[in-house]
Parts: sequence; C-alpha cells; structure tokens
Amino acid sequence: MIHDRLTRDLFAEICRIPFIDPHSHIDPRRPVSRSLDDILGYHYYTELAHSAGMDQAPLAADADPKERVRSILAHLDRIDNTSQYSWFLEIARTFLGFKGDRVTEKDADALWDAGQRVFRQPDWEHKVLHASNLEKIFLTNDFDDPLEGFDKSRYVPCLRTDDVVFHLDNPQVRERVRRATGIEPLDAQTLDNVLGRFFERFTKNGAKACAISLPPSFAPRPVDRGDFSRALAEFQTEEAGAAAGYLVSHGVFWALAEHCRRFRLPFDLMIGVNRAVYPGGVHQGRDLFDQRTSLIQYAELFNAFPEVTFCVSVLSSGQNQELVSYCWIFPNVITSGHWWYSNVPAYITQDCRARLQAAPKTKQLGYYSDAYKLEFVLPKYNMYRRVLAQILADDFVRPGVYTETQAVDLARMLLRDNARRIFGV
Amino acid sequence: MIHDRLTRDLFAEICRIPFIDPHSHIDPRRPVSRSLDDILGYHYYTELAHSAGMDQAPLAADADPKERVRSILAHLDRIDNTSQYSWFLEIARTFLGFKGDRVTEKDADALWDAGQRVFRQPDWEHKVLHASNLEKIFLTNDFDDPLEGFDKSRYVPCLRTDDVVFHLDNPQVRERVRRATGIEPLDAQTLDNVLGRFFERFTKNGAKACAISLPPSFAPRPVDRGDFSRALAEFQTEEAGAAAGYLVSHGVFWALAEHCRRFRLPFDLMIGVNRAVYPGGVHQGRDLFDQRTSLIQYAELFNAFPEVTFCVSVLSSGQNQELVSYCWIFPNVITSGHWWYSNVPAYITQDCRARLQAAPKTKQLGYYSDAYKLEFVLPKYNMYRRVLAQILADDFVRPGVYTETQAVDLARMLLRDNARRIFGV
Amino acid sequence: MIHDRLTRDLFAEICRIPFIDPHSHIDPRRPVSRSLDDILGYHYYTELAHSAGMDQAPLAADADPKERVRSILAHLDRIDNTSQYSWFLEIARTFLGFKGDRVTEKDADALWDAGQRVFRQPDWEHKVLHASNLEKIFLTNDFDDPLEGFDKSRYVPCLRTDDVVFHLDNPQVRERVRRATGIEPLDAQTLDNVLGRFFERFTKNGAKACAISLPPSFAPRPVDRGDFSRALAEFQTEEAGAAAGYLVSHGVFWALAEHCRRFRLPFDLMIGVNRAVYPGGVHQGRDLFDQRTSLIQYAELFNAFPEVTFCVSVLSSGQNQELVSYCWIFPNVITSGHWWYSNVPAYITQDCRARLQAAPKTKQLGYYSDAYKLEFVLPKYNMYRRVLAQILADDFVRPGVYTETQAVDLARMLLRDNARRIFGV
Repeated sequence: MIHDRLTRDLFAEICRIPFIDPHSHIDPRRPVSRSLDDILGYHYYTELAHSAGMDQAPLAADADPKERVRSILAHLDRIDNTSQYSWFLEIARTFLGFKGDRVTEKDADALWDAGQRVFRQPDWEHKVLHASNLEKIFLTNDFDDPLEGFDKSRYVPCLRTDDVVFHLDNPQVRERVRRATGIEPLDAQTLDNVLGRFFERFTKNGAKACAISLPPSFAPRPVDRGDFSRALAEFQTEEAGAAAGYLVSHGVFWALAEHCRRFRLPFDLMIGVNRAVYPGGVHQGRDLFDQRTSLIQYAELFNAFPEVTFCVSVLSSGQNQELVSYCWIFPNVITSGHWWYSNVPAYITQDCRARLQAAPKTKQLGYYSDAYKLEFVLPKYNMYRRVLAQILADDFVRPGVYTETQAVDLARMLLRDNARRIFGV
Repeated sequence: MIHDRLTRDLFAEICRIPFIDPHSHIDPRRPVSRSLDDILGYHYYTELAHSAGMDQAPLAADADPKERVRSILAHLDRIDNTSQYSWFLEIARTFLGFKGDRVTEKDADALWDAGQRVFRQPDWEHKVLHASNLEKIFLTNDFDDPLEGFDKSRYVPCLRTDDVVFHLDNPQVRERVRRATGIEPLDAQTLDNVLGRFFERFTKNGAKACAISLPPSFAPRPVDRGDFSRALAEFQTEEAGAAAGYLVSHGVFWALAEHCRRFRLPFDLMIGVNRAVYPGGVHQGRDLFDQRTSLIQYAELFNAFPEVTFCVSVLSSGQNQELVSYCWIFPNVITSGHWWYSNVPAYITQDCRARLQAAPKTKQLGYYSDAYKLEFVLPKYNMYRRVLAQILADDFVRPGVYTETQAVDLARMLLRDNARRIFGV
Repeated sequence: MIHDRLTRDLFAEICRIPFIDPHSHIDPRRPVSRSLDDILGYHYYTELAHSAGMDQAPLAADADPKERVRSILAHLDRIDNTSQYSWFLEIARTFLGFKGDRVTEKDADALWDAGQRVFRQPDWEHKVLHASNLEKIFLTNDFDDPLEGFDKSRYVPCLRTDDVVFHLDNPQVRERVRRATGIEPLDAQTLDNVLGRFFERFTKNGAKACAISLPPSFAPRPVDRGDFSRALAEFQTEEAGAAAGYLVSHGVFWALAEHCRRFRLPFDLMIGVNRAVYPGGVHQGRDLFDQRTSLIQYAELFNAFPEVTFCVSVLSSGQNQELVSYCWIFPNVITSGHWWYSNVPAYITQDCRARLQAAPKTKQLGYYSDAYKLEFVLPKYNMYRRVLAQILADDFVRPGVYTETQAVDLARMLLRDNARRIFGV
C-alpha cells in the first residue's frame, strides 16, 4: 500500500519492533472482541454513522447486536473516506478473512459469522497480541478497580482520576471512595489520606502512571488548605456551589501531583476536552474541544513539580506547537501520542514532524491506541507507523540526517524504549 | 501544469464534473464582466495593489476605468507570486486570448481591448458557463432583493441576513424592512412576522439557503422574549445602547434559525470575520479575522436545532480542525468550502485533507467561488480541483484506498451531489 | 543532501545570493566565536541538553568551559534528531573540519582543539562572512549602547526597546536612561525628550530599525497624556502599582511608534513571548508562548501609523495565518522571518508557503538568523534556503508559475532586495 520503496522498507522494519502502548481502555479481563458488535460498537463507528444520518434506535442496550452491526454497516458507505473506516477495513482483512476492497451492508452476515468463528477461539487474545507485536499495554483503571485477575506484566494498571477531581460532588462517587478506602474525604487531610490509599494500592499492583483528561479552561493551581477543607465540607451538604466545585477540583488535582511526586508516578495529562457538548449524541460521541487553550495554564504546575514527569496529550495542531515548545524547554514535559481528533494522518504528520525536528527524541511517546478492544491496536498503530515511516524517509534518511538503521532506532525509541524508561516498565 | 501523471489524470476527470457553486455574489442580471475593470476591480486586486503600494486615487468612482485598470496592472509585478494573481492570469489566458507568461502594465491596452471585444459578445454569459462547466450557482440576496429577472434554475437565490441581524439599529435598514414587508419590527412578534415574510417570499422564489457572516466573538443564544421586545422598542428611539444591540442581534439570529427550521432551509454560517479592521482600506478590503474563536460558541445552536442543517465556513486552519471535529460529531454540521483568507493552496490542502480523513464524505461541500463575476468561477475552481486531485492521488489512489473511479466519485460528491442533496436543488 | 535535482539546483543558486540578515544579537566587537564554548553555550544547546536531562552545574559562570562543552556534547545523542543539532553539525563540518556523521562526547577534545585553532585566526571574522555570503547584519542595541568601534556598513545598529517599555519601573533602567540622555523621564514630555535623544543618536549612528519583543497579551493603544505623566511620576516613588505599569508600557510603546514615524524608522514587532515561564531554566531558556494572541490587538496601531512600516514576527503557525492576512490588507505590515519556536522546517514550510501564495512578494523579509555568533548564520540560513528551494520547486517552477530564473529572483527579493528597500540600507 505504500508507494515509495524507502518508506515501505522503513515501515516493514518499524513493524518488527515490539511496542508498548501507553494508553488504552482495554478491559484486561475481556481484552478482545467477542463479536462484531464489539468492533462496530466502538464509538468511532456509532458516532460517525449517527453523524452521517443513522438514527440511534439500533444503539439501544436491548437492540439486537446483529441488527446493530447491520445498521452500522449500512452507513459505512458514507464514511468510507475516513481513517476510522480504514481501521475497520484492516481489521476485517487481517482478522476476519475479508477479501474485498469495500465493506457494505451486503457483507453483514458473512462478517458476523466470521466474527463468531474467529473471536471465540480460545487463544484469540494471544493471536491478536502476536499479530500486533504488542509487548505491553497500559489500562485506564478507576480508583476502585479491583486490579485483579489479569497478567500485570502485559496489562499495566494506570490510575484514572477524572472522577475524583471533577465529580466528587456526586454522592455515588463519594460512596465509591468510602467503599474503596474506608475514608470520608471531609477535609484536606482526609482527602490526602484517600489519595494515599489509592496510590498505595495501585503502585503495589503494578500501576505505572496516574492519568486524567482535562477541559480546555482548566488551569492548575494550589489551593489554600483551609479553603480546600471548607469546600470539601460543603460537598457533604449537597448544596455546594460553583466556587466549592472550583476549589475541590483544583485542590484534588494539585494533591494528585503531590502524590505522583511521592509515589514517583508519571502523570498523564490529556488536555482540552469539553464533555457532553452534544448531549444528544451516541455514548462516548458527545465530547468536543475548544482550540482556545494554552499550556501556559500548566506553567505553574510544571514549575512546582520538577520531579514529576508529565506526559501531555493535546487535541489540536495549534496546541501541539505549544507542546513541542514546552517539551523543548521543561525537562519534565513529555509529548504523548496523537489524541482523538488529532489522530488522523493530516494532523499526525504535521504534529509528529514538528516534534521530531524540535524536541529531544528521548522525551517523546510516539503513539498510543486509546483502544477498547485489542483488535484496534494493530490498524491504529499501522496508521501511525506509515506516517512515521514517511517522515523518517523524507526528513531523515533522504536528506542524510540518519541512516536507515538510525531511523529505525529512532522509531524504536518512540514506540518502546522511551515508554520503558519513562514509566519504568 | 501538473507534474505528476496520476494527479493530472484525476484533475482532467474532475474538470468533467458539472458542478454546483453554493456561494457567490453574482448579480444574476449582470453575471459576467462588461470590461476589464469588472475583473481587476475585484477587491482581491484592488486590496493587494493597495497593500503593495498603490494609492487609492484610481479607485475613485469617477476615475477613468481604463486608467484604473492600467494602474492595477502596473502593480501586479509586486503580487505575481500570489494565487490571486494566478486567477487573473488564467482569466487572461482562457478568456482574453493572452499568450504570455506574465501580465504587466505593457499589456494594459491589448487586454483592455480584448475585454471590450470578448465581454460584449451577446452570448458571453453562456460561453463562460459552458467553459466553466458550471451547472448552478447560489447568489447572495438582500432581504429586499426583487428576485426577478433571472433564470432561477441556474441562479439560486439565497437570503443573506447580515443586515437584519447586525444593522437593525440603522434607520435605513429599518426603512428597507418596512418597504419590503409593510411591517415595523417593534417587538418579538412583529420581528417574527418580518422574518416570516422574508422566508415566504424567498422560498416561493426558489431560495435554497439562508446565510450570514459572523464576527469571531459571536455566540448564538436564545433571548428572553420580553427582553427582545424591549430591545427592539429601544431601537425605535435612536438611543439604543450596546445591551440592546446585543439582545437584538442574538434575538434575530435565533429567530432566523427558527425560520430555517420552519421553512426547511439550510443555514450557511460564515464564522470569524471582523468588519472594517482597516477602515482606510479599499472597498471590501477592510476586514480581517481573529483566530481566537471557537465552534463551542455554536454548540447551543447546533443542539437546539437538530432539524436545521448548518453549512459552516471558517477563516483559519485552527478553526478548521474544530470544524472537522464538529462535523464528525454533530449530524447537522456540514463543512463548507475554503473561505477568503483560507482560500490558498497551502491552507486548502491541509484543511481539505483533514476533512476527507475524518468527516463523512456526505457532509462536505467541497468548494464555492465567492465570485462577483462568472469569469472567476473557472480559475478559482481550478485551483481547488488541482489541490483535490493531488490529495486524491496521494491519500486515496496511491495507497490503494480508492480506485481512480472511486476517487472521481468522491470528487463528484464534493462538487455536486452533496450540494444537490443538502440544498434540495 | 537534497534528493530532488530541481530543488538542489535552486538551492545552489539561492546560496549565491549575498543576503542581508535583518535581525541578530551579534556583538559587532566580538562577532565570531573564540572557542567551542561560544558555540555550544548558545541557549539552543544548553536548554535542550538541560531539558533532556543535563543538570545545570556545568553552566555556572565559573565552571570550566572545556568541561561545559564536554557535558553538552555528552547530551547531544538525546537531541540528534533536532534541527538545532543539525546547525551544530553543519558548523562542525564547515568550520571545524569535522568529518563524521554524528558528534558525540568522544569528539570533545578534537573539536575543542579545532575550535582553539580555527576561531583564533586573525581573519576568522572575514572568513566566516565570506563563507556565509553575508552582506549586512542587523544588531540588537540597548538604548545606551555606545554604537562605536565597528563597521556600520556591515553591522547595522537597531534600537531595542524592551527595557524602556517594560522595565522603566526598574531603578537600574532609569539610572541607565539618565546616564544615556541626562534626562529624568518624569512625565510624558520628558519621556518624549528621552526617546528623541535615543532616536537622534541611533539614526546618526546608522540605525535602520527600532525593535521590541512583546508578550501575547499586549494590545497597543494611546494613553491619555495626563494619565501617562501621572504614571511616570508614580514610578519615581518606588510604589508604582500595576495600573501605572500598564499606562507606562502602553504610553512608551505608543511614543516609540510616534518616533518611528518622525525618524522614518521601521518598527520590528516580535509578538507573542512570555518571559520567565520556566524560571528554573537555563539562561535565555525560560521563555515560552501562549497561542491565544491575535494581530487584531495591533489593528489600532497599524491604523494610527500608516507612515510607519511594521515588520512583524510571530511565534506560531496559527498566528502566521493572521500575519499573512494582515500583510495582504495593511500596506504597512511586513512579514518578517521565522521566529524561535517556529524556526524549524515543519513550520517554516507551511508558514512560508502561505506567505508566498497570498501576500505581496515585496512585503516579505524572508529570514533572519537571530544569531549571537556569526558562525550560526550559515547553518540557519541553509535550513531556510533548503525549505525555500523546495517551495519554489514545488509551488512555482514545476507548476509553471515561474521559470527557474524568476524563482531565484523571488528568493533574492526575500533575502536581500526587500530588506534594502524597507530599511533603506
């Protein structure tokens, strides 16, 4: 599929590198798909099909999965130009024996049946891992995740903290905190105790990162301890106002950074998403960004925690230019992957070229899959590896900056070595 | 002129597609140029010549048109690097028999004479339409445009609403409203009646869209009906303040969206222009943008009117990345053309690639000419078609995503089929 | 090193053009390096080495320069992917006889010794100038710079004004003003007198520009003369507040523009840098930007001073799209170079293509080195010239827009002729 020979050779070499995927939503107890519904139920397909005209009836929890798949397939001809579609086509070809050039509604039965046959093989997980050349993959674990029942040398736990930063006013979240720790976060000290329990349990269970996604307006700053305590107390009354919400989210976030320092965990910051911008959208297809955000909002944080490594993901090319510069200047800022709305070749190409031309190669986590099922790791990484091979050919090998071997060494750093060093895996 | 064979072949095929131009400023009663002054009087030339040093004396209404043309031609050597210049060169070659590689002041007499000869041919309009392969072209009609005296199957009316949203405080605009409808917009209800009259008359006369251009700071929201009425009343007193201005512009805009829903008209939003940033500039050469704007400002609108199709144009690549994402998520958001300061290959390439890689192909209006005279449709569309051919070659045909036939089918969708379906023409 | 023949030929021709470098930090009394420490002490290396893990001990003023060099060299393998590294490699090869493909710690002694031998040649300055084909280079002179002891036909003085705009509250700055002019800036009139003295002395000494760097939030506007005087008086009390700081910085800036008009000096605006974002960083490696800035902040200035030429540099590609458009519309706005965090090929390519496609070629200053030592002019300009040659090949010569000769003429305008005309050198 790659026209240019040098790029094709580099791509082939890069595909031989076993890689570490530093961010996903894999459930390690059910890492692979059980039916085609798990594949086409991925929000990238449901939201694009919906955006292109599909109504949401087939997406209801009690709808027939096979009919849901048929309905989504019936809308794929409207999105067969997209990268997201190309991931599915690659899955169908690689894993389901599909031989055609386009997938349409007519293929619904055959693909469904192939899925039933293939995904249910007892060694399917290992076949996918092997075909993908995936060495380790990071998870997204809620603070009360049991962290049990899976191979932690393959599936690396990661403490996801959105709930405790942004939803501690929710009684259900507070109830989950109580159950997980036996502590009521009534003030700054008890909140610290709660986070201490989280970090202890997670690091004992092999967690290698703390992570959070943040809205474009968020600007971390330390909160006065008395104010923080008062705001946490206000949360107990169910009448907490916006001011208390602000103090708690900023106070908890800052305390998380302190715990990252204490427990020597890198902190993954995924910056820029507004939640529920389109509340009528499909599950997980409601969030969008606001380009008007800046990493200057994080300067105080980066300065206050020189011992904490911040692995930063952003949502726009404009913000990527800032990220490149902040990584170039701040020792503790790492560029991380190509996130969500930036995860198409047009943006990956420009963003990755800039990173490779201006920031230390040791401070770049090349890519992550963000996948919910292991089958998506291969096509997403292939998209990235093609772009990377093209950049290495055009910007490094052909101009004589690197030999082919050195170019592949750089790719290995981006795909594996940096993740090993930065996360200590 | 295209180096690469596949791109050249695709370009040739794409040029064979009769297309629909969904936005222009053509006067359908005088659609073509009558002299070279109509061509070089286009603001793209007057503003660039002025920016490059030409004083504005030759642009006075009472100046000799032939001298005006000579003066602009005398400055073209300062802008012969630009895409705008290349449109003129293509017009001179295609329509005026010009054989040279560069146009200079020395060509003034010959080009003027050629213009007099060519543009005055009785069938010139049809020759230009035929040479351009233009099937239909949308207009920009003021609310009080008579909408008579032209072929509405070729020239599609479109209700332009800037005046009624942003200039209702202007007594002349209110007078025009009264004359056009017999109604005085004294309160929310009479304003609704005014808009109802506009939409009735326009839709009866074949209008297929409502359109408006908006400043970067605009953020649509519904206005309390009482507040809206009071603000409209304040407008009658000639002492209306900024608060009333805010309420009226937001109230009228929201009411327009309601009428688009009621009359099933798509709403073209051209987002991001500040007017009269350089008040000393030439006519139509005074506006500029502020990159600090976001489509999040339109989230409430997109959510409130799921039945209305919003065809969105933006002015910067930063905003285009948002547009791609909003089109990907919101069923009622369409990407529309490459507007004004983004209408050069460097930006079209990046913006169009991202759209094609991430948003449904059925939700993209590829291009519009924004032309004031039909002669500009051909060179502007050729610029776009060259970029599109290159993207289709590089991103679709060579990597095996599409066959050449499928790539041309995609182009047909962008140039014709989507416009037919979205606008119902 | 350039793969494509046409681009290689254009690059070779472009390198033959003697050029004018319109912005640098060269000390004309010590324009060249005296040891390898002057080369690797450049903040691009110290900040990248520090960002990649080097501690700052070797950077102390009293540290051994040879050990400092060794320490930085020992970290180069972490940044050998960057453009900044490639400048050093080109210096080592061109000036120090280095024959290898990569520079490592092992080369420390040999490179140091080569530096001692080469840099100390009595005619080294002229050798570098000759090898670089550099005709004139602009300086950055403090208002109290003696402006003596150097060849002003080669080294062109430029009045840098950051101190007087942003640091007049600093008693040391006020003391320097008094010493330089014999005037105490007590009010608007005496401040005017101070600036008059600066401009008189500088223009008498061959200064050809006034320059300043500005934070992203700065928005020039005229200040009421009484308010300005009161704020300047408040500065004498050592108790000046933020309001006085705002009035003084805006008042002095506006007065500078008035003096540029009176003394017919172009005003270089370098827009967008926040100082000391990372206060713990290395010297000159502490500043970063905020993408959320707009040239609309300068519209009032551009309108108020049509007689002043503003040569504008920006820090992001988002802002570059604005710059292209403002240069296209405002006769007095010039695009200037590719500044700092935008000075890598990924951004230069996109930014330069857009400028060449949309703005008058006569209003573009192609590049400046920003160098502290003459040895950096050659590799930085080569980076730019390679990008420019590629753009001229792809966008101009191959599509038939320009002949090769015309393309090189355009390069000459960007590299030399525009600077000569705009600055009157």
